[in-house]
Amino acid sequence: MMVIMQVNSRDEDIQAIQEHLHKRGLEGQINRGVERTVIGVLGNTYPELRDELELLPGVREVVPISRPYKLSSREFQPESTTFKVGPVTIGGGEFVIMAGPCSVESEQQVMDTARAVKEAGGNILRGGAFKPRSSPYSFRGLGEEGLKYLANAKDETGLPIITEVMDTRDVEMVSRYADILQIGARNMQNFTLLDEVGRSGKPVMLKRSFAATYEDWLLAAEYVLSAGNKQLMLCERGIRTFETYTRNTMDIAAMPAIKRLSHLPIIADPSHGTGKWYLVTPVALAAVAAGADGLQVEVHPNPDMALSDGAQSLNFENFKRLTTLVMAVRKATEQVPSAP
Amino acid sequence: MMVIMQVNSRDEDIQAIQEHLHKRGLEGQINRGVERTVIGVLGNTYPELRDELELLPGVREVVPISRPYKLSSREFQPESTTFKVGPVTIGGGEFVIMAGPCSVESEQQVMDTARAVKEAGGNILRGGAFKPRSSPYSFRGLGEEGLKYLANAKDETGLPIITEVMDTRDVEMVSRYADILQIGARNMQNFTLLDEVGRSGKPVMLKRSFAATYEDWLLAAEYVLSAGNKQLMLCERGIRTFETYTRNTMDIAAMPAIKRLSHLPIIADPSHGTGKWYLVTPVALAAVAAGADGLQVEVHPNPDMALSDGAQSLNFENFKRLTTLVMAVRKATEQVPSAP
Amino acid sequence: MMVIMQVNSRDEDIQAIQEHLHKRGLEGQINRGVERTVIGVLGNTYPELRDELELLPGVREVVPISRPYKLSSREFQPESTTFKVGPVTIGGGEFVIMAGPCSVESEQQVMDTARAVKEAGGNILRGGAFKPRSSPYSFRGLGEEGLKYLANAKDETGLPIITEVMDTRDVEMVSRYADILQIGARNMQNFTLLDEVGRSGKPVMLKRSFAATYEDWLLAAEYVLSAGNKQLMLCERGIRTFETYTRNTMDIAAMPAIKRLSHLPIIADPSHGTGKWYLVTPVALAAVAAGADGLQVEVHPNPDMALSDGAQSLNFENFKRLTTLVMAVRKATEQVPSAP
Amino acid sequence: MMVIMQVNSRDEDIQAIQEHLHKRGLEGQINRGVERTVIGVLGNTYPELRDELELLPGVREVVPISRPYKLSSREFQPESTTFKVGPVTIGGGEFVIMAGPCSVESEQQVMDTARAVKEAGGNILRGGAFKPRSSPYSFRGLGEEGLKYLANAKDETGLPIITEVMDTRDVEMVSRYADILQIGARNMQNFTLLDEVGRSGKPVMLKRSFAATYEDWLLAAEYVLSAGNKQLMLCERGIRTFETYTRNTMDIAAMPAIKRLSHLPIIADPSHGTGKWYLVTPVALAAVAAGADGLQVEVHPNPDMALSDGAQSLNFENFKRLTTLVMAVRKATEQVPSAP
Repeated sequence: MMVIMQVNSRDEDIQAIQEHLHKRGLEGQINRGVERTVIGVLGNTYPELRDELELLPGVREVVPISRPYKLSSREFQPESTTFKVGPVTIGGGEFVIMAGPCSVESEQQVMDTARAVKEAGGNILRGGAFKPRSSPYSFRGLGEEGLKYLANAKDETGLPIITEVMDTRDVEMVSRYADILQIGARNMQNFTLLDEVGRSGKPVMLKRSFAATYEDWLLAAEYVLSAGNKQLMLCERGIRTFETYTRNTMDIAAMPAIKRLSHLPIIADPSHGTGKWYLVTPVALAAVAAGADGLQVEVHPNPDMALSDGAQSLNFENFKRLTTLVMAVRKATEQVPSAP
Repeated sequence: MMVIMQVNSRDEDIQAIQEHLHKRGLEGQINRGVERTVIGVLGNTYPELRDELELLPGVREVVPISRPYKLSSREFQPESTTFKVGPVTIGGGEFVIMAGPCSVESEQQVMDTARAVKEAGGNILRGGAFKPRSSPYSFRGLGEEGLKYLANAKDETGLPIITEVMDTRDVEMVSRYADILQIGARNMQNFTLLDEVGRSGKPVMLKRSFAATYEDWLLAAEYVLSAGNKQLMLCERGIRTFETYTRNTMDIAAMPAIKRLSHLPIIADPSHGTGKWYLVTPVALAAVAAGADGLQVEVHPNPDMALSDGAQSLNFENFKRLTTLVMAVRKATEQVPSAP
Repeated sequence: MMVIMQVNSRDEDIQAIQEHLHKRGLEGQINRGVERTVIGVLGNTYPELRDELELLPGVREVVPISRPYKLSSREFQPESTTFKVGPVTIGGGEFVIMAGPCSVESEQQVMDTARAVKEAGGNILRGGAFKPRSSPYSFRGLGEEGLKYLANAKDETGLPIITEVMDTRDVEMVSRYADILQIGARNMQNFTLLDEVGRSGKPVMLKRSFAATYEDWLLAAEYVLSAGNKQLMLCERGIRTFETYTRNTMDIAAMPAIKRLSHLPIIADPSHGTGKWYLVTPVALAAVAAGADGLQVEVHPNPDMALSDGAQSLNFENFKRLTTLVMAVRKATEQVPSAP
Repeated sequence: MMVIMQVNSRDEDIQAIQEHLHKRGLEGQINRGVERTVIGVLGNTYPELRDELELLPGVREVVPISRPYKLSSREFQPESTTFKVGPVTIGGGEFVIMAGPCSVESEQQVMDTARAVKEAGGNILRGGAFKPRSSPYSFRGLGEEGLKYLANAKDETGLPIITEVMDTRDVEMVSRYADILQIGARNMQNFTLLDEVGRSGKPVMLKRSFAATYEDWLLAAEYVLSAGNKQLMLCERGIRTFETYTRNTMDIAAMPAIKRLSHLPIIADPSHGTGKWYLVTPVALAAVAAGADGLQVEVHPNPDMALSDGAQSLNFENFKRLTTLVMAVRKATEQVPSAP
């Protein structure tokens, strides 16, 4: 349920609504938009509540919403979410390129890659220090040591850092190094972790599980938002289907569909989305043309020697080529209004 | 198995190979490329055949191929297939836009749509006279009457016609009207129909079944090619996944993947690929950016009143906007070499 | 829409309804059940029709049905469909075991298998003379020659024959040999073929496409039923999922779900459902326990040498073991009422 | 890689192998079977290692294994795993029925259900105190309070308790109450949680993610086993497919397939596997017939009023009917040897 306030509603009207909701064991989340203030009602509502609220002063309309997600919906917040990460703007018409190695392997590897990413026009450095690996016998990351390498690379290049956090117990420590906390696909429904990054106050990127519908995904976003963290973006990285030639099937329609359903920025990860380096650039361009707000791409100085995901990583030369083409397509599609 | 001939091989060498294959109950399909002639061996081969063939004059190499499709593979024919349909070139760097109504409903509807398609820059008219419908109680098309309307629209606008054929018994009749025979997704593995359109000599567009892997699809193409028909293109129209917000999940990676695996032109159908008209343009642009050789789009004078697929049809204004944007993206990506 | 007649309604009441429907361009399909007569209205109905019909004499109630299939629904026909194929009863509490080779390969192979099937307690002989093969280079069946071998085996053993028909042009010829026409999974939405077997008057078994929902499947059944053929049964043979260890994922819930949604008998095919012979027996038993009306199983004198589907075929010894176990589970579950 | 020892190998031989592996940075996990001792080599092996090990005394053979999971494989441990939970034996030919409410809602609800479960022949009580819910606005469980209710019910009925743990920080606390720790489908690849329950020493049940292949699942099991915890069982609860009539598609072939690939007990959860209470019993019987080692079933005193999963919960009467039928099918299939 959402309470839409009149244009000239006063602060005490909003206060009165909050108090009414508290008496009912509910909570109101306020969104002060450019044109109107909307209050999302969180908790178990009941049909009569609608009448109760519509009678309060300053209320224009009470709208029941059939979709189970609220705070992440376009209805709740018509304006697209935008926020800053250091010098970089996410959302709001800006385009962001996050790139770097799947796994942090050595100080040299991270530093070399950070320089190449920056030189090619990338604006955020990615790198995994804690790696979710299907097998316990695979390389599982350097841990805090890896985070230090990333911090050094940030010091030198000025690129903000995005890195994955996998365990509620690590959120505080990882937050000391990272500019953006990444929730990986396998943890998209690790709800206590979502609660924790929601409370962290850090910008968050929530990857879609390879088995999640849009609704599942936006409900997971709801965990972060309802914990009070509005600096959230989503990342499509392919879903699991019967096709096995590609590692996943990149759901390209997620770009315009999510922009219609939600105000959150949407990033595309063509590396996991395809699993094959020679498909990364065409699919990245497709995501740009379909309206993505940014890309996350795996880049490695020497993909053949990578400790993880080598097959889907670009070398520096191919990454440079990608950014050049991305800018060309981006320019061509700037005339494309977001889906009506 | 493929026999790669020497550069200076003679016709009698090729003749001798054919005779050898016939004696073994096999058949050779000859592909005279720009640089070299390749003979694909069709039938059940056996390991010793490789030695037998390598000893024959003019043979450079005999290559066993592990993929089950042969004639459709890039290995067999490195040059991209290209052919003409009336004034329109399919493949070979040209871009084709096929558009029109899902179902032919009336002479007026077809004529109006044909004019709008032409004016907006489309170059082939699509329209269904025989409709495969999930329910027997849905509108199943006007049959031959519908084909006549299409023919009239072609007479007036000069646009070649693509239309679906569903039954082996109709191939001859439909071929009298159509410039391209379309095999729908549900008939992709209707093997006797594939044989029949293979023998028809007409250009064919083979849509991917919503449950077919790339391998299934290229094997279906193999039916058409092995019947002697090389004027064949493929069309990706989305696959069935667990996501239900969209009618199908458009497999965008199919554009670069199929171009790598096969020499056949690849068309994208964002109408069936998404099932929602407001997703059609972004996904169409994505397909262009990913390297598609063309688009097939559903256009209707009044989508709300369409007898089929109204929800995914563009009106004339939105179609005009689509073609403008397609041309802009196409230009931006002309610098994109096909996937390495 | 369904018209439910009063218990004491007269033939002329039903006649009057038919005439009313004809005037409206609709058609009524009559189902005289044990307790009540129900008339299914086929064609494009409109809301006012409900009132029109309820005013006619003998009508108890007019029920709009939201599901798109009608004739195949339990609502239309509460009693389970049952029919005879030679000496064998399909449905209605009887259990049928259809077995035989995937492909008819030779007269000897068919005869040997038929004897083994009969001896082990099977009651219908299956065998493919026209084979839908993913690749045009695979063995595609012996055609009419194969049907003759099946007929000979029937003459000797008395087992009725089920065999696949793939092309509308072959329906008449195949019907001269077969007792049951099988529509394969790949042709489940070959709608003109469904029309044709619907008109044939022969018992039909409709396999579920590996990408069909229950609704798609029952709509395909609707084609056969609406052409006037009520001797129809369904066969679940596994769906395509992301799991690749098995050839398909057997949808075991289809047994009770289809029995709830429809009155048609439901057969299970654990051979295609798993693709591995060592999984066939456990999954066959599962289908029996879940309420299937029968099984279709691939049996071959020498699976390692089979021209198709050897990996999923049982040898005679394992088939004998299967039938023994099936009978034991069947007996244990006879106390199980069909799903409430 | 697995080192298979000679029948008469001595402890010092095994000791010497361990030392050799340690020098190479690897680890050996010893499995003393009835007939032979097998040492699984964990870590990144290299081809030459095979020769090195085969030369050591007491070694019969060194077997490279191509499957990525080791400790969970039948090759590593041919004997089926069996262990005791209080008075209940899991695996090894015994059959276990775990039942109870999806969520613990009140002391009365748990106590009533526990009595009904016991009376109907169930032997383990399930109940969720920490609930993974797609939406943050759904009931998320009573937490430790709920665990206390479960403990009381155990005190009265003697039924051991299985309950889910979702967060690494809760493992110790939950272990104080639970007899079996359950890892839910959404946490199957929460790798730090797997590590933690692996170290807990408590029996664990690992549910299959609805998007996991058998290989993913057995690799997740490998996390628990490689942390030293051998009291592990698996639970199939349905996978996500395109079919939406059922909540998930129960993968019935997982019963015989997992028993062939692994020595771990396999439990079936027909409640989540179908999502509809009227499908639970037929699918439960199917699982029994296919060889499951047990069932987990949701039971509620009043399913219509349940705070979660009411649609798929059985009432006491239907649960009683289920256990009666399960025993009948179990008896009929006891003659069924496990898949060859």
